[in-house]
Amino acid sequence: MLDDLFSVERFVGDAGIALSRIGRFLGDTSVRGLALTDPALVMAAAGKLTRGGRPDDAAMHADRLAAILDLYARTGIPVYSPGYMGRQFSGPLPVTAAVDLASAILTQPASFYEAGPLPSVAERIMGEELNRFLGMPADRFTMVTTSGGSLANLTALLAARGRRYPEVWTTGLAGLDRRPAIAVGEDSHYSITRAAGLLGMGEAQVVRLPLDAARRIDPVRAAAELDAAAARGLDLFALVATAGTTPVGAIDPMEALADLAAERGLWLHVDAAHGGGMIVSDRLRARLAGIERADSIAWDAHKTMFVPAACTMLFYRDRDHAHAAFRQEASYVFEKTPDRYTAFDAAEKNFECTKRPMIMSLWVPWALYGPAPFVEKIEGLCDMAVQAHDLLRAQRDFVPLHRPDSNILCFRYVPEPPMDEAASGALQTEIRNRVRSRGRFFISKVDLDGQAALRVVFMNHVVTAQHVGLLLDEIRTVAAMVLEERA
Amino acid sequence: MLDDLFSVERFVGDAGIALSRIGRFLGDTSVRGLALTDPALVMAAAGKLTRGGRPDDAAMHADRLAAILDLYARTGIPVYSPGYMGRQFSGPLPVTAAVDLASAILTQPASFYEAGPLPSVAERIMGEELNRFLGMPADRFTMVTTSGGSLANLTALLAARGRRYPEVWTTGLAGLDRRPAIAVGEDSHYSITRAAGLLGMGEAQVVRLPLDAARRIDPVRAAAELDAAAARGLDLFALVATAGTTPVGAIDPMEALADLAAERGLWLHVDAAHGGGMIVSDRLRARLAGIERADSIAWDAHKTMFVPAACTMLFYRDRDHAHAAFRQEASYVFEKTPDRYTAFDAAEKNFECTKRPMIMSLWVPWALYGPAPFVEKIEGLCDMAVQAHDLLRAQRDFVPLHRPDSNILCFRYVPEPPMDEAASGALQTEIRNRVRSRGRFFISKVDLDGQAALRVVFMNHVVTAQHVGLLLDEIRTVAAMVLEERA
Repeated sequence: MLDDLFSVERFVGDAGIALSRIGRFLGDTSVRGLALTDPALVMAAAGKLTRGGRPDDAAMHADRLAAILDLYARTGIPVYSPGYMGRQFSGPLPVTAAVDLASAILTQPASFYEAGPLPSVAERIMGEELNRFLGMPADRFTMVTTSGGSLANLTALLAARGRRYPEVWTTGLAGLDRRPAIAVGEDSHYSITRAAGLLGMGEAQVVRLPLDAARRIDPVRAAAELDAAAARGLDLFALVATAGTTPVGAIDPMEALADLAAERGLWLHVDAAHGGGMIVSDRLRARLAGIERADSIAWDAHKTMFVPAACTMLFYRDRDHAHAAFRQEASYVFEKTPDRYTAFDAAEKNFECTKRPMIMSLWVPWALYGPAPFVEKIEGLCDMAVQAHDLLRAQRDFVPLHRPDSNILCFRYVPEPPMDEAASGALQTEIRNRVRSRGRFFISKVDLDGQAALRVVFMNHVVTAQHVGLLLDEIRTVAAMVLEERA
Repeated sequence: MLDDLFSVERFVGDAGIALSRIGRFLGDTSVRGLALTDPALVMAAAGKLTRGGRPDDAAMHADRLAAILDLYARTGIPVYSPGYMGRQFSGPLPVTAAVDLASAILTQPASFYEAGPLPSVAERIMGEELNRFLGMPADRFTMVTTSGGSLANLTALLAARGRRYPEVWTTGLAGLDRRPAIAVGEDSHYSITRAAGLLGMGEAQVVRLPLDAARRIDPVRAAAELDAAAARGLDLFALVATAGTTPVGAIDPMEALADLAAERGLWLHVDAAHGGGMIVSDRLRARLAGIERADSIAWDAHKTMFVPAACTMLFYRDRDHAHAAFRQEASYVFEKTPDRYTAFDAAEKNFECTKRPMIMSLWVPWALYGPAPFVEKIEGLCDMAVQAHDLLRAQRDFVPLHRPDSNILCFRYVPEPPMDEAASGALQTEIRNRVRSRGRFFISKVDLDGQAALRVVFMNHVVTAQHVGLLLDEIRTVAAMVLEERA
């Protein structure tokens, strides 16, 4: 049985089935939103497919695999459709699927050179390629891939904690006579606050910095907040800026925040999970000015570099800090003698022991195409957000809530006659839910200062102003239905 | 340009190239070890492939993709070869490559039902399927997949910390008047000790429990060690057992340790990253007796369930504890109203925000084949380890160091005349390095009580006693060379 299941024939046959089923999904660019299916129905279908599988029945096998892949595609999010504009997920460059297929079989963990020579080397190459745009000191920086933005943020804060309190790794925080604290913007990602809870600082020691009207950290009020925190007895050791906040895609003023961090001896971490991709564009790069002064930068290639999740890069300004995050003696832990091979090992810089060779899905398209498609795509998406903003401004029944810093736009539908805040908020939420269930478009909802707003994220280059126009019509239709029902 | 790169034609063409190149790798079961290449050479080859890529040149594209995949396969570990016996990596079931190809394009994060309905449902199904073997309380347990064994161990210890010190998530450890501590076996994985450093307990608060002659935790001496730790003022809250230690694959006595944990109110976590797979076998299951009493179990499907990395399952005895690991108010963090969809969301139980739909590569072969191939494979590997052990015992110049609890076997080569310990240790290391560089077999080296030993891990069902015999001959040849050079 095993010889059959592990045969080249099975591999080629199964992959062929996947190619035909998934090719259909990729090629279907009809305008559609979410086909949100009742979990009970998916559960019943999947349960039926789970029962009675038999390794020796090749014909049943082919039918069942096709049925599974069809169910997988049918119930999922249509990331290649121009109707899907609701989240920070993008349909990856198709060549990355060929890479993932190869990586599944080749089984090369990217933690040790010995186990994954090419992924280890590709990680170094991509670090250097992308740092040409980022501009960290070329002779000191390092980059390590890791399994998602949350893990990159955690690792960076761990390195920051280790720089300020090197003894804590061994002795623990319980013996510390200071109260370690970090400062973050009000719109920072939940993984930052979570890291404070996890690392033992405690969420109460997270200082929230106020935002300006564009929802970026206000550096002047931030300075006052840091002073107040110090006066309360908090020992601040890190400041987290965001390049591309989750709610509105805002980019914090990194030059001013780098000044603040430098004055106060704080580690500056930039969570550029979403916004990092803008750095490859000559036109957009200036929006990230100051990012090169960060001590660490987290950047999800699976967001604005259009590769499968998770592929997160963590850049350190100083490679010694990368090793300091996990303060273990490598020779003890890893039982090895340093040599030309181990110099390429990522394990000491990584939380993971067995790490997916995730860099391959970024390096391969970069090697094949160069930067051009990445530049064209991210510029198109950011341009589209501005176009949508201008389009909304020209409507009497829509209000954009900010001029986009990146590819995210929040707005509200404002019917005549005007509504009070609570009623308007309820209307936005109802619109979003109805748009979702009608299945033509998918948009998201976000609460800004406690008020619901609608949100679109441009991740797909096939989306045009015409699609945005159709979306606005859909919203008007839905809103009219809601208002009529209420009347 | 983008329309071309995102076309179905590119997808099918690129995947076709991957199929032919990777099919060759899969089909090559010649006996070979590591083709360890100088990083400078891989760097030069990869660097050359990185430069000058052009999206518009389809012929160049095909050649270059083929060259990249060939380099990837040629320099990597031959996991499907019977010569590769050195690490806990296995060549995955080929159907999983088709699944990974599909998952790359479908882009369904498994954190939210809305984004990944089938992966969310499959996670629940696989939890139930596998708990039939594990035997946790069916109405209370829960399972969540996560990105690797290290993250599963960390998450479990976080849940344990949260149960004992619920206030720490908010207030931090710095204010605590107790010294939280955990107890682990001497051979436990480094990720456990690391978690203590990371979570703010401090590595000095890790109590190391002594092992018996079979390198399993000795429960009697462990009890004394726990008493001594308490007398030193440590506040123990968790005990970590291992089912399949990294050095020798030993399985700690979980019944006795569960008793110890229950008496003392400790959270029992079982790191079954390696050994978990044995549970599906009627013949092997008894070796894991007591595992159902754990509060949490980490189990890497990418080890002994033969799917691509990372696919780790974290089982909790009580689902409320899963939610307690990350003590955030879900409605605040995730801005959502609980409904029939959100009931399937994994996000509140997961460290990750965007999580790979890793469960698909386990559920799909399980659905297609049922348990049979998993059972056949794990039984074969464990049987092979015992066979190899018996074979070694029959040789006058080899000594097996333990009777295998799972599929790992450590041993030493002992030439005539006898050597002192230091010389013998140096010889084992030299043998391992030469075997590696000759490229016929790959085995690993491990230090046991400070003494080097050779180590084989049986992960490939095509390995037979004949291959083990060939390996012993190779070791003899190499040892003779070393001893001759020294003389």
